[in-house]
Amino acid sequence: MSGLIRMIATLAIATVLSTASLPASADDLPSWNVGDTKQRITEFVSKVTEEGGPDYVAREDRIAVFDNDGTLWGEQPMYVQLAFALDRIKTLAPAHPEWKDTEPFKSVLSGDVAGIAASGEKGLVELVAVTHAGMTGDEFSKTADDWIKTAKHPKTGKAYTTMVYQPMLELVSYLKAKGFKVFIVSGGGIEFMRPWTERVYGISRENVVGSSIKARYESKDGEPAIARLPEIDFVDDGPGKPVGIYSHIGRRPIAAFGNSDGDFEMLEWTTSGTGPSFGLIVHHDDGDREFAYDRQSHFGKLDRALSESQGRGWTVVSMKNDWNRMYPE
Amino acid sequence: MSGLIRMIATLAIATVLSTASLPASADDLPSWNVGDTKQRITEFVSKVTEEGGPDYVAREDRIAVFDNDGTLWGEQPMYVQLAFALDRIKTLAPAHPEWKDTEPFKSVLSGDVAGIAASGEKGLVELVAVTHAGMTGDEFSKTADDWIKTAKHPKTGKAYTTMVYQPMLELVSYLKAKGFKVFIVSGGGIEFMRPWTERVYGISRENVVGSSIKARYESKDGEPAIARLPEIDFVDDGPGKPVGIYSHIGRRPIAAFGNSDGDFEMLEWTTSGTGPSFGLIVHHDDGDREFAYDRQSHFGKLDRALSESQGRGWTVVSMKNDWNRMYPE
Repeated sequence: MSGLIRMIATLAIATVLSTASLPASADDLPSWNVGDTKQRITEFVSKVTEEGGPDYVAREDRIAVFDNDGTLWGEQPMYVQLAFALDRIKTLAPAHPEWKDTEPFKSVLSGDVAGIAASGEKGLVELVAVTHAGMTGDEFSKTADDWIKTAKHPKTGKAYTTMVYQPMLELVSYLKAKGFKVFIVSGGGIEFMRPWTERVYGISRENVVGSSIKARYESKDGEPAIARLPEIDFVDDGPGKPVGIYSHIGRRPIAAFGNSDGDFEMLEWTTSGTGPSFGLIVHHDDGDREFAYDRQSHFGKLDRALSESQGRGWTVVSMKNDWNRMYPE
Repeated sequence: MSGLIRMIATLAIATVLSTASLPASADDLPSWNVGDTKQRITEFVSKVTEEGGPDYVAREDRIAVFDNDGTLWGEQPMYVQLAFALDRIKTLAPAHPEWKDTEPFKSVLSGDVAGIAASGEKGLVELVAVTHAGMTGDEFSKTADDWIKTAKHPKTGKAYTTMVYQPMLELVSYLKAKGFKVFIVSGGGIEFMRPWTERVYGISRENVVGSSIKARYESKDGEPAIARLPEIDFVDDGPGKPVGIYSHIGRRPIAAFGNSDGDFEMLEWTTSGTGPSFGLIVHHDDGDREFAYDRQSHFGKLDRALSESQGRGWTVVSMKNDWNRMYPE
């Protein structure tokens, strides 16, 4: 009997000791369930920040890059920026009666998604030209910010900026606290994100990398402005992401967080350097609390990156099992 | 007699008091002579950092942009990057016997500056293609860094990175200490600067904005790399500077520092916002300690910006009169 008591006591002490020896950082990620995924994250951060350790990485090289759509916030039933563009078309339509008979506007106004898709890349460029160009940088910034403050998600009726993933917010804060420089590297429009990333994610405007249209400096009547032009400048998606990183950051990241095949090259680039590195994929497998999709999805298709994740040592997050909370509050 | 002693004592005390009442920041700029220029700088910084003051600017908006060539380091008798390109041609020439009879290489190899100039933009693009492209990002970075560590200025025989302006180094440090985010916005190549700006100026790679050539992500045999392509992507000079700022920083700066007409639009953009702002031009008027040039110079021509500086409220630095020291040590 005393032997059993001693054994139980020993086990209890062992448990206490084991808990006590967990890195302090574990508390920084309360929305992440205790388990392999969380442990991989904290172990990586611990080893690269341990001064004198074999895997120590100097502060200036602690670059972490996050995809936005599907990684920091939702992307279903469509990219938020696409919802913005469609809303803008409806708002601007009264001044453009000709749109009723012209594609892709006709399909947008009648809610014909197949018709929009059928207009192809030419149609998409026309939508971007009308909704994102032909105004100054300040005007677009205000338009995007005004919209994001009032627009509602079609399914939940909540503001889009409340449908950001709480566990990922904690991860961003945790990495910043550990001396990482955190960047967004998104296929979305750089100027669509910048007005609100500081407020919502704590990521400042200059740390946002994204797709862009061309711009020109104009000074009329002593009033200079950035004129947004109806021409694609850079597509920060797929193989574009390492190029965007090269251009904006100038350093290979040591940690990359994505959720789709559009993040494949960013993950590959990040995790094929010579030093320690970390790649993570958010897998949308929680149809109850969010949306469940991967290999067949129109938005955020995750196929090749999922198949190759194990071989490449990338951590796959199960939103269903790894996260005890989806959104803030 | 005692009256004289008292007067001297009073003057001495007054001097001590007057020194003591100078803003603490004055000590941060020891290479700047006491005077109007130095006072304008410290007064601007004081007012935008005074919490609760009418001109207070939040930290995230304290963006300061510095031109590089002629503002942070020298640009005579030619841009340092041009010296790099010409040196590279000479280094690579043995493997290219055909260059002996082909422009612009023939002129470069024979030291015929007029011949190089005569090859025009086409010639310049060919020089860039051969010296800056056709290699990976890492390879170019190493080539540029190796060169800058060994190359010598043709007149002084000193390393180029020792011919940086001590007063400007102090200004960069001072602004950083006051919560400014300091960026380089240069007409020079972004990847030519990044390898050494942290070491030399204390400005990190991601805070460097510059001209660029196109790049492509390539993954061969599981070894991904950034391939540098022989095609101009962006020219960060003149009206390009506000566009580069828009793309990389996403905010209008509140302080801009330049030295030539290539900085005109950056200064104009910075100083035409609604809040407090500061524009400064370094005027190269010290032929003894450096080079004296402005309106007629091939490199760093300063004409319109000098003529309009007073009307626009820009501070003009006389290197001769405002700086008591030119270079570090």
